[in-house]
Amino acid sequence: MVKRLGFIGLGTMGFPIATNLHAAGFSLAVYNRTPDRAKTLVEQGAGKAASARACAEGADAAFTMVADDEALEAVTFGPEGILSGLPKGAIHVNMTTTSVAMTRRLRDAHAAQGTRFVAAPVFGRPDRAANRTLFLCAAGPADAVEACRPALAAVSQRQFILGPDPVEAAVVKIAVNFQLASALVTMSEGFALAAKAGVKPQQLLEILDIVQFQTPTYKNYGQRICDEAFDPAGFKLSLGLKDARLVLGAGDALTVPLAAASILRDRFLGGVARGLGDLDWSVVSRLVRADAGLA
Amino acid sequence: MVKRLGFIGLGTMGFPIATNLHAAGFSLAVYNRTPDRAKTLVEQGAGKAASARACAEGADAAFTMVADDEALEAVTFGPEGILSGLPKGAIHVNMTTTSVAMTRRLRDAHAAQGTRFVAAPVFGRPDRAANRTLFLCAAGPADAVEACRPALAAVSQRQFILGPDPVEAAVVKIAVNFQLASALVTMSEGFALAAKAGVKPQQLLEILDIVQFQTPTYKNYGQRICDEAFDPAGFKLSLGLKDARLVLGAGDALTVPLAAASILRDRFLGGVARGLGDLDWSVVSRLVRADAGLA
Amino acid sequence: MVKRLGFIGLGTMGFPIATNLHAAGFSLAVYNRTPDRAKTLVEQGAGKAASARACAEGADAAFTMVADDEALEAVTFGPEGILSGLPKGAIHVNMTTTSVAMTRRLRDAHAAQGTRFVAAPVFGRPDRAANRTLFLCAAGPADAVEACRPALAAVSQRQFILGPDPVEAAVVKIAVNFQLASALVTMSEGFALAAKAGVKPQQLLEILDIVQFQTPTYKNYGQRICDEAFDPAGFKLSLGLKDARLVLGAGDALTVPLAAASILRDRFLGGVARGLGDLDWSVVSRLVRADAGLA
Amino acid sequence: MVKRLGFIGLGTMGFPIATNLHAAGFSLAVYNRTPDRAKTLVEQGAGKAASARACAEGADAAFTMVADDEALEAVTFGPEGILSGLPKGAIHVNMTTTSVAMTRRLRDAHAAQGTRFVAAPVFGRPDRAANRTLFLCAAGPADAVEACRPALAAVSQRQFILGPDPVEAAVVKIAVNFQLASALVTMSEGFALAAKAGVKPQQLLEILDIVQFQTPTYKNYGQRICDEAFDPAGFKLSLGLKDARLVLGAGDALTVPLAAASILRDRFLGGVARGLGDLDWSVVSRLVRADAGLA
Repeated sequence: MVKRLGFIGLGTMGFPIATNLHAAGFSLAVYNRTPDRAKTLVEQGAGKAASARACAEGADAAFTMVADDEALEAVTFGPEGILSGLPKGAIHVNMTTTSVAMTRRLRDAHAAQGTRFVAAPVFGRPDRAANRTLFLCAAGPADAVEACRPALAAVSQRQFILGPDPVEAAVVKIAVNFQLASALVTMSEGFALAAKAGVKPQQLLEILDIVQFQTPTYKNYGQRICDEAFDPAGFKLSLGLKDARLVLGAGDALTVPLAAASILRDRFLGGVARGLGDLDWSVVSRLVRADAGLA
Repeated sequence: MVKRLGFIGLGTMGFPIATNLHAAGFSLAVYNRTPDRAKTLVEQGAGKAASARACAEGADAAFTMVADDEALEAVTFGPEGILSGLPKGAIHVNMTTTSVAMTRRLRDAHAAQGTRFVAAPVFGRPDRAANRTLFLCAAGPADAVEACRPALAAVSQRQFILGPDPVEAAVVKIAVNFQLASALVTMSEGFALAAKAGVKPQQLLEILDIVQFQTPTYKNYGQRICDEAFDPAGFKLSLGLKDARLVLGAGDALTVPLAAASILRDRFLGGVARGLGDLDWSVVSRLVRADAGLA
Repeated sequence: MVKRLGFIGLGTMGFPIATNLHAAGFSLAVYNRTPDRAKTLVEQGAGKAASARACAEGADAAFTMVADDEALEAVTFGPEGILSGLPKGAIHVNMTTTSVAMTRRLRDAHAAQGTRFVAAPVFGRPDRAANRTLFLCAAGPADAVEACRPALAAVSQRQFILGPDPVEAAVVKIAVNFQLASALVTMSEGFALAAKAGVKPQQLLEILDIVQFQTPTYKNYGQRICDEAFDPAGFKLSLGLKDARLVLGAGDALTVPLAAASILRDRFLGGVARGLGDLDWSVVSRLVRADAGLA
Repeated sequence: MVKRLGFIGLGTMGFPIATNLHAAGFSLAVYNRTPDRAKTLVEQGAGKAASARACAEGADAAFTMVADDEALEAVTFGPEGILSGLPKGAIHVNMTTTSVAMTRRLRDAHAAQGTRFVAAPVFGRPDRAANRTLFLCAAGPADAVEACRPALAAVSQRQFILGPDPVEAAVVKIAVNFQLASALVTMSEGFALAAKAGVKPQQLLEILDIVQFQTPTYKNYGQRICDEAFDPAGFKLSLGLKDARLVLGAGDALTVPLAAASILRDRFLGGVARGLGDLDWSVVSRLVRADAGLA
């Protein structure tokens, strides 16, 4: 079982997760690009590392929870990266939502130097990270995943264990996000259709909720659309675009045409092009309305 | 309140609905294109009409629950149709899922001759029609809808009352169906993506269900896709195509571009072109898989 | 060979075509919904008919060149329509761009009553109708098409003869229009892409013209886009939408998914929804630009 | 004016272009990953360089004509790359069709070290490279482009000079390719539509050619589709997919939603997924036919 952990990336998700690992008794060294964020954890007794490499040196496992592929590349490769520091046999556990291409690259880079790579993306927002109700799926070499189980269980309410290829976990995370993003666009089209016939969005939402989906997912996002409550964002449109790119990128890497995913990418891209990137991603409903000639 | 009712269309949906109206004490005259289907109801005391017109003559309200626009046109217009028989001030209550264009035409034809038109499409399959757990939305002149309330309540568990234009109910029915059909296509794309990475559909479905949607809607259809359980059909692909046409037709009539709806129409049309029209509409997942090079 | 002709529809296309038939020596009776338009032809010696039926009575062939399916239905069916007047064995030659569904209906209605139906849609605008440089394709029973050849040759520079089913000609007309409409949307996307990189549309057009297409088709429409010359319209966006509907309707009738056609329909529909229907259809480029955040 | 040139990439395009530069009297050092290809040129008097860096050392301009972004990255960056060898003030002229993202990266990398970058992609196949009838567009710092004019004129029949940002040329190349690829898909849909009505593709092509496009572009590709002449490939489907990625990548980099481009990407990706990547890209017509239920 892994005991000495490095943790790289102390953002809105990484900080509460690292805090939970520390509270569960794991020995922790932390690193963040902007050092201030490490302060609280260090005061609680975590070690402060000067680089991602330092974080990985001597660790059983180095965790990453950073913004995107680019940030992940920055902390993994190069002279100050995880790959330079991680001891033979140790594990890189990546919780970042990451592209299929980058997941493959990490998998192969670790295999080539005798370290191991586990993809363990999480489902949930910062509040669920804080109260340990995240869900999580993990894929990688079976013994490596097994060795990480206690650590993963310390930060999430349930762990779905997939197969030996980390790409499995990367693609599951991407595919799940995709369903929600698509629902957003489809609901937007449905609302615009109803609005043109004089039906108030709230009426359609109530019916949709009761007769068909009975799920908070549709209700919450539908409510935002009904209320045009796009600011402040729950999830920014620019992040939605990032996710849409991951979906289409996964389709490209795995040779899967994804027509529905193209629709949402185009909607998100059109919103960002119009300067709406910082609003909640349900703002795509406004674009759909505009295309229908609705004010 | 309407008391003497005509009921036209005794198919898998119409028969149990008419039975419930009869059981609730309404005076009922029934008509079906193939007369056999009326037999049971007539034995129970319902009147047998020789035509849709005869069904409407002397009625407070004539109900229609037929296959599609074409069937609805056949029983409404022409010398043997409802419009020729319905007394001034009486009501045509249409429960058929009907296009926006046909709904407009019916609304205007009734208004022109001093009868009234209420659209009251239902949500649910025959089993729910039988046990009166259908949902239903209704739109039309307020007094006409009000006069029909007891009858509508006798066949459904809940009635959503919309505004004075019957088109509102038609479009709500179409928009709700559209959400589910889209989810089917989007799930199919997600499953294909995961499959290409070696993830079993069942694994993705379990995660999707727990971490995101928590709704029988996704679970049931996802399960069909996982099991490739397309025969016998719960809902035939050819009917899915019909619904997709209604969505796009509504978009055309109301000037609403619906990119996501085009995606599903193309998928359903491609399935029908390949001779899969009688299978369950979740068979679109097979087409999506084929496009990804999966066997 | 047909000699006595009825001609129904004296609009911007029908009038010059009828004039050419008259000038070529055919005996002509004409009918137009608004009677004024027939005046000039009647002064030149053409007979004036009081209805489409009257136009067809005693004719070897009745020609139709009207606005759309709806207008064609109005002049063909019903007590005052062509079908009521056309002698047994005589021919209905339809030059209107018509849907596959309506073409089938006309074919079958004529066959049922012993008259014959030829679809003969034309390619070209009014100026080419006037100077007889239209192209034309014709499909229908071989002897009927043959009997019409001299008349068709009197109004066009070249006639493409297809097979015995009138639907062949209807679909060729639709498919050819479709190519141009698609090019318009694709060019619009290309121009928007180039514009975002600082390339002037005119530069891209010059290169596109010389290195790839060398055809007035792209050049003329590209020039309109470059100049934003949408008013007055060469071809109205609302007519483009009508054509897009014909393409998708043909796909539906013939079970052919047409993803590219859906794209253009959505663009045209979005433009009409925004009130741009009377501008030139190249105005879709403005919508594409707006989606790219270009002013 | 540039006189001493390095030339990197002696494939089917690079070899004839380098040969023409040599024949025009430029002093040439050549490098190719597989050294054999340089042999003929070296026998004619060109210098042989051991690396891309060696090729760039002492040159006024280093030309690249390689397979794709990845190959371009390999010969440009790193210790053996062009950037390490190119003298201050010298020019990197890239003829490879390259992504917007890579073009930006090259532009910035050169600017940062005091060398200059010109994008000069070409239009045409190897036969036109051989007989110097290529077209070419060039963008970059005005003095750098000017200094390269004689060299560019020695390999092409006409040079379109764009603005100071190399991205302009990259995006023009991508946008022009995009028009043709789209035409391929749209034609495929048109042919499938016609085929379902019993119209032979050859008939539609003849009409399309005469009445609308009058251009070899449509005719040649249309003919391949008619003849199902996909093997040997004129242009491989896998390369078409690469181009489609460049289009969508450019749209992403420049924030331009490109719905039509998504359609073609999905078609090409679906073909590659089915193992058709080595056939001519007009093979997409077969996929469109299959979706229409045509054998």
